[in-house]
Amino acid sequence: MSSAVIERDPIFETDFIKEMLRQMRALDSYGTWDGQPVENILAPYVLTKERKATIPIIGDPDEEVLARVKAFYNAIAVLIEKECGMMAVPMVHLTHEGFGRVLITVGKLVAMDRTLRDVHRFGFESLSKMKTEADKILSVALEIVGKYAEVAGI
Amino acid sequence: MSSAVIERDPIFETDFIKEMLRQMRALDSYGTWDGQPVENILAPYVLTKERKATIPIIGDPDEEVLARVKAFYNAIAVLIEKECGMMAVPMVHLTHEGFGRVLITVGKLVAMDRTLRDVHRFGFESLSKMKTEADKILSVALEIVGKYAEVAGI
Repeated sequence: MSSAVIERDPIFETDFIKEMLRQMRALDSYGTWDGQPVENILAPYVLTKERKATIPIIGDPDEEVLARVKAFYNAIAVLIEKECGMMAVPMVHLTHEGFGRVLITVGKLVAMDRTLRDVHRFGFESLSKMKTEADKILSVALEIVGKYAEVAGI
Repeated sequence: MSSAVIERDPIFETDFIKEMLRQMRALDSYGTWDGQPVENILAPYVLTKERKATIPIIGDPDEEVLARVKAFYNAIAVLIEKECGMMAVPMVHLTHEGFGRVLITVGKLVAMDRTLRDVHRFGFESLSKMKTEADKILSVALEIVGKYAEVAGI
């Protein structure tokens, strides 16, 4: 570990944030984020209430927002997979105008199931809040996978 | 039952075909199918191998095809629901160029999970083949719902 890393917020050393970065880099076909600090790469996820309120929720959200939503749930699926050792498959499905549903399945088990609303405004007060949310989803998902391991193993 | 109905192929009296008609009528906002015979309304689902081969599988399939795919799996979800008395939720998700995944969930159980390919060519040799396929999916789904009733009931 380099000294530059040690000085930083420990959140950047968590599995979740590391996986988020991997997800974001995978989206970055043109290498525009190469050499950028982590904070900048994840900045689009941080939206204060005031900033959220300025984003119109009319029409379908654009591709970039959708990619961010997918990256977030992909990262959670990767962490589920790491913990339980079984394949976790995310499926983000928008129906219309920023409404939708996101599932993560493990075998025949729905480990996570959420309704999405106002996807245009997808974001969190801070990276720390984002991680807290991801941890919550992860722990609920792992609990159900543990409880119904047979169904998850199909 | 009117005498006109009695003379017809008994397939039109099955729950599946009746539900398919209901699904198709729900799509028909302009009433263009009002008064049309059932065969005509379901005709777009019947594609011989030769007709399939003539449909290009380049680019994303159009909205009409997608609506037909959804109607088919919606009908199956309705029949699952009727049989097991629990809500069955279909989710058809196309990724790109006619590839995708379709799920039907009951509670936290994935009652059906399929990969979709060449959605542009979605169709069956005959209505009878279509019903056979639906019956097969239905019976597999009901079996797993029966086996993991606790998960389906969450």
